[in-house]
Amino acid sequence: MSEFHVYDTTLRDGAQQEGLSLTVQDKLAIARHLDDLGVSYIEGGWPGAIPKDTEFFRRAAEELGLRHAVLAAFGSTRRAGVAAADDQQVRALVDSGAPVVTLVAKSDVRHVLKALRTTPEENLDMIRDTVAHLRAEGRRVFLDAEHFFDGYRHDPDYAVEVVRTAAEAGAEIVALCDTNGGMLPPQIADVVAVVRDRSSAALGIHCHNDTGCAVANSLAAVDAGAMHVQGTLNGYGERTGNANLITLVANLELKLGRTVLTGGKLTDATRIAHAVSEITNVPPYSRQPYVGASAFAHKAGLHASAIRVDPDLYQHTDPMTVGNDMRMLVSDMAGRASVELKGRELGLDLAGDKAALTRITERVKELEATGYTFEAADASFELLVREEVDGARPSYFTVESWRVITESNPVQPGGALSEATVKLLTSQARQVATGEGNGPVNALDHALRLALLPVYPELERFTLVDYKVRILDASQGTDAVTRVLIETADAETTWQTVGVGANIVEASWQALCDGLVYGLFREGVPTR
Amino acid sequence: MSEFHVYDTTLRDGAQQEGLSLTVQDKLAIARHLDDLGVSYIEGGWPGAIPKDTEFFRRAAEELGLRHAVLAAFGSTRRAGVAAADDQQVRALVDSGAPVVTLVAKSDVRHVLKALRTTPEENLDMIRDTVAHLRAEGRRVFLDAEHFFDGYRHDPDYAVEVVRTAAEAGAEIVALCDTNGGMLPPQIADVVAVVRDRSSAALGIHCHNDTGCAVANSLAAVDAGAMHVQGTLNGYGERTGNANLITLVANLELKLGRTVLTGGKLTDATRIAHAVSEITNVPPYSRQPYVGASAFAHKAGLHASAIRVDPDLYQHTDPMTVGNDMRMLVSDMAGRASVELKGRELGLDLAGDKAALTRITERVKELEATGYTFEAADASFELLVREEVDGARPSYFTVESWRVITESNPVQPGGALSEATVKLLTSQARQVATGEGNGPVNALDHALRLALLPVYPELERFTLVDYKVRILDASQGTDAVTRVLIETADAETTWQTVGVGANIVEASWQALCDGLVYGLFREGVPTR
Repeated sequence: MSEFHVYDTTLRDGAQQEGLSLTVQDKLAIARHLDDLGVSYIEGGWPGAIPKDTEFFRRAAEELGLRHAVLAAFGSTRRAGVAAADDQQVRALVDSGAPVVTLVAKSDVRHVLKALRTTPEENLDMIRDTVAHLRAEGRRVFLDAEHFFDGYRHDPDYAVEVVRTAAEAGAEIVALCDTNGGMLPPQIADVVAVVRDRSSAALGIHCHNDTGCAVANSLAAVDAGAMHVQGTLNGYGERTGNANLITLVANLELKLGRTVLTGGKLTDATRIAHAVSEITNVPPYSRQPYVGASAFAHKAGLHASAIRVDPDLYQHTDPMTVGNDMRMLVSDMAGRASVELKGRELGLDLAGDKAALTRITERVKELEATGYTFEAADASFELLVREEVDGARPSYFTVESWRVITESNPVQPGGALSEATVKLLTSQARQVATGEGNGPVNALDHALRLALLPVYPELERFTLVDYKVRILDASQGTDAVTRVLIETADAETTWQTVGVGANIVEASWQALCDGLVYGLFREGVPTR
Repeated sequence: MSEFHVYDTTLRDGAQQEGLSLTVQDKLAIARHLDDLGVSYIEGGWPGAIPKDTEFFRRAAEELGLRHAVLAAFGSTRRAGVAAADDQQVRALVDSGAPVVTLVAKSDVRHVLKALRTTPEENLDMIRDTVAHLRAEGRRVFLDAEHFFDGYRHDPDYAVEVVRTAAEAGAEIVALCDTNGGMLPPQIADVVAVVRDRSSAALGIHCHNDTGCAVANSLAAVDAGAMHVQGTLNGYGERTGNANLITLVANLELKLGRTVLTGGKLTDATRIAHAVSEITNVPPYSRQPYVGASAFAHKAGLHASAIRVDPDLYQHTDPMTVGNDMRMLVSDMAGRASVELKGRELGLDLAGDKAALTRITERVKELEATGYTFEAADASFELLVREEVDGARPSYFTVESWRVITESNPVQPGGALSEATVKLLTSQARQVATGEGNGPVNALDHALRLALLPVYPELERFTLVDYKVRILDASQGTDAVTRVLIETADAETTWQTVGVGANIVEASWQALCDGLVYGLFREGVPTR
C-alpha cells in the first residue's frame, strides 16, 4: 500500500497547454527541478505515441540521475480485441524502462461507447488485461480514470466498476480525474467518499481548473481520503490548466501541517517556479499564489507602519517558507537586502561596504527597469558587482566595431547565411576577424573567438551551450526591447550572462562578450 | 432584509493590484461594464481619502446612468475620540451621494491594538456610532469586517462581538473578510456557520486568492449561508488578487443553478472580461476560467475525433453560456480529425476532400517535427491548407534576394543599427528597396513594405503588432533552431504567422512575408 504522495504531470498533461512545446532537453531540465522540489513521481510523457517522449525516457535513464523522484510513463490500455502483450503501444510503455506505468482508462460509459467505440465489458477487460500484463512485466501500475466525475454522475455503478477492476488487477492507485474540470469541492468530496466505501482501491485525484477550483477540489479529495494528488508546475495544462502543484503542496504543508515533499524542499518553490518559466518560455504569472512576484507585495500607505511593527499581521504565511520575499512597492529596502543576499551567494560580502551596496542596488534597479534580469544571469551580476566594488569591470579587450551581414542563399533556398566581422583591441595588438555562421549570433560568436584566440588561447575550452531570447513589451512589434540570456560552459561549470537592447543582435553581442570575459576572469587569466 | 446579491469591488480593492492604476474615466467605463454584466452593487472607491474617488462619485451621479446596479462608497469608521458627525472622512462618505456606504472596521483585536492603537471597546463604539450616524443620514450601510478569519481564530468572542455590534446599529450586511487570504474552504464554512448561529446579522464574504482558493472559499461561505459575495473582474487585487467575480458568478449560475445576476447577462462575460483588460492595460489571462482565450481550447489529437461526434463530452459547459467559443488547436499530436475541425473553424470544408486532408495532416506533422507550430499561427495554417487544396499558395511576389547588415554604432555605443535590402519580382516590375531599423527584423519589415507598397498600396493598412522568438532545442547554443511568431493587424482583426529556421533572421523573414501575403489574400486583393 502506497503512502500519501505527490504526483507531477507537468511533462505530460502540463505540456498540453496552448503555446507550450517542450524539447527533450527542456523536459530533462524540468524533471531535475521537480526532483529538487521533492515530488514523489514524475510523469515523463507517452512513450510510443510521441517520439519525443520515447527519446525522453531513453535519455532520462542515461543522464537524469534522479535523487528520489520515480519516473512514470503514461499510456493507454490495450486496444479493443488485441492481447495486451501484442499491443505495440503497451510494449512501448514497458520498453520505456519507467518503474511506474500510469494507464489512462475510460470510466464514463458514454466515452466508452462514443469515443472508444467498444462495449462497456470490453473496456473493463482492456483495463484488467493491461494492468495484469504490466504487473507481470514487473511494473508498478497507476490508473487514471478519465472523466470519472462526469461518468459517475451519469452511471455511478459503471464508474465504480472501473475502479474496482483496476484495483483487483493490481493497480496500486486509481486516480479519479475531473478531466473536463467542471466540478466544485463538495461534489468531489462526496464522490471520493462514496468510491472509498464501495471499493478497496487506493484513490488519487487529478483536477483541472475550469471552475477556478482545481486546488480546492484536490484538497477536498485529499480530505475525503485520496492518497495521491496530481498537479503541474505553475498550473500548466490544457484550457485553464491543471491543479497548481506548488499551491497544492504549500497548502498541504503550511496550512494543513502535512509533510508531502520527500527529500526536497518547499523553500526552493519560488526559484523553481521561475526557472521553469524560463524553460517553457511562458512568462511567470505574477499573481501566482505563494511564488508569484506579487504574492507578498504590499502597496504601502495605510499599512506601512503596522507592517514594520508586525509583518505577520499582514501576511498569511512567512514568504521565506516558499523562498519568496515580502516586497513593499514604494520602498527599495527589499532591493538592498536581496542584492546583499545575492552577493553572499556569490561569495562576496557586501554588508561591509554600504556605499557599494547602495550603488549596486541602484544600478540593478535601473537596469532591471530597462529589461535586464539578473536572477538568471549570475555572471553578468558578478561583473557588475566587481565594477562597483573594484572600480572597474574585468577588461580583456576593447571593441572597436562589429558588423554582421545576413543574406538569402541563392544556391539553397531557406539556407540563409550570416557573416560577422569584429575589430578588437587587446594590449598586444589590434585584432580583426571574420566568422561565418548559420545565424547572426553564431557568426559573431565565431568571429569573436577567431579574433581573441591568438591572445587568449584559454577561450578554446569555452562553449556556448544555451541561448534564449525574450521579447519584452511585445506590443510594439519589432520595435520592442529584446533580452538575450546566454549560457557558456567550460569543462567544469556553466555561467549565465544577459544582454538587453532594441536590437536583438546587439543584445546578443553584449551577452556573448560578457560570457567570454567572465570565463577568463573566473580562471584568473591575466589581461594581455 | 437583503436578497442574495453580488457585490463588485474592482474599482476599490481590485485597483490595489500591482501595476494597475485607473483614471476616473477608466472607472466610469468599468462601472458601465459591471452594470451590463448585472452585478447588484458597485463599490466605486473611497471618497474623501482619495481625490480621484471623490471625483468619480461626482461624475458617476451626473453621467453614469446605471440601469440596475447600485453604487457603494467605501470608507472607514470614525476616528477614535471624535463624534461620527464631526469626522471629515465620514462626512465625505455622506457627501459622495452613494446610496450605500460600506464601512471597513477592525475585527481582529490585535489589529485594534497594534494598527489602530485604541481599545477594543472604543473600536466597538466607533463601529456603533458610525453605522448609526450614516443610517440617520439616510444611507444604507454594509460593513467589511477586516481580518475577520484571522481575528476569529485568535479571539472568536471579540470577532463575533464586532458583527453583532454592526448589525444591531443597523448594518444591513456584515461581510467577513479573509484579508490576508490564507484560509481554505472548510475553515471558511465552519466560521461562517458559527457566526450565523451567534448573531442575527446577514453575512457577506470577501476573499483573497493567496491559497489559490478564493473562489472555493467564497462558495463555501455562500453554502454556509452568506448572502452577499464580493469579487473583482478578472480577479484583480493586491498580491494574488481577489476572488474572481466572473468565475464566481458563472459557478453560481451554471453549476449551482442560482440566478445571481440582476438584469444583466452572463453571455456578456467574455466580452466584458476582455474589454476591461483593455481599460486596465493588464494583458488578459488566457487561462482564466470560463472567459480566457484558452478556456475552451482543445489540443489533444486523441480527443478530436470524439469532439466532432459530441462536443459536450469534452467540455464542462457550453462556452456560449459565457459568450466564449470552443477552439481546436493544431499541434504535434494532431490527427486528421483535428485538422478537419480546424479547417471548419476557418470556413473550409475538408471532409469532402480526403486526399487533401491526408496531405495537410502529413505536412503539419512534418513541419511540426522541424519546429513549426500552427496552434498559434492560424494564418500560416490557412496558407498551407490553400496550397494543398488549391494546388498553390496565394502568391503576390517572388523573392529574388534579401540582405541585412547590422553593425555597431560608432557614434552612439549600444545603439547598433540595421539596414536591409530586398529584391522582389511582382508581375509588374522588379522592386528593390532598402529599409533601416533598430534591429534586423524591423529593417526587413521596412524594406519589404517599401518594395511592395507601389504595387500593393493595401499594405499601408497592415501593422506588425507582436513578435515572439523561441529558441528550440537550445542545447546546441546558437546553432539551435529558431521559431518566430508574428502577429499582423489591420483595422478589423489580427492574424498570426510562423517561421522556422537555423537562422533567426530567415525565420523572421518567412513569418513577415506570410503575414503580408495572408493579409492581401484575406482582403481578396488580386495579384498584380
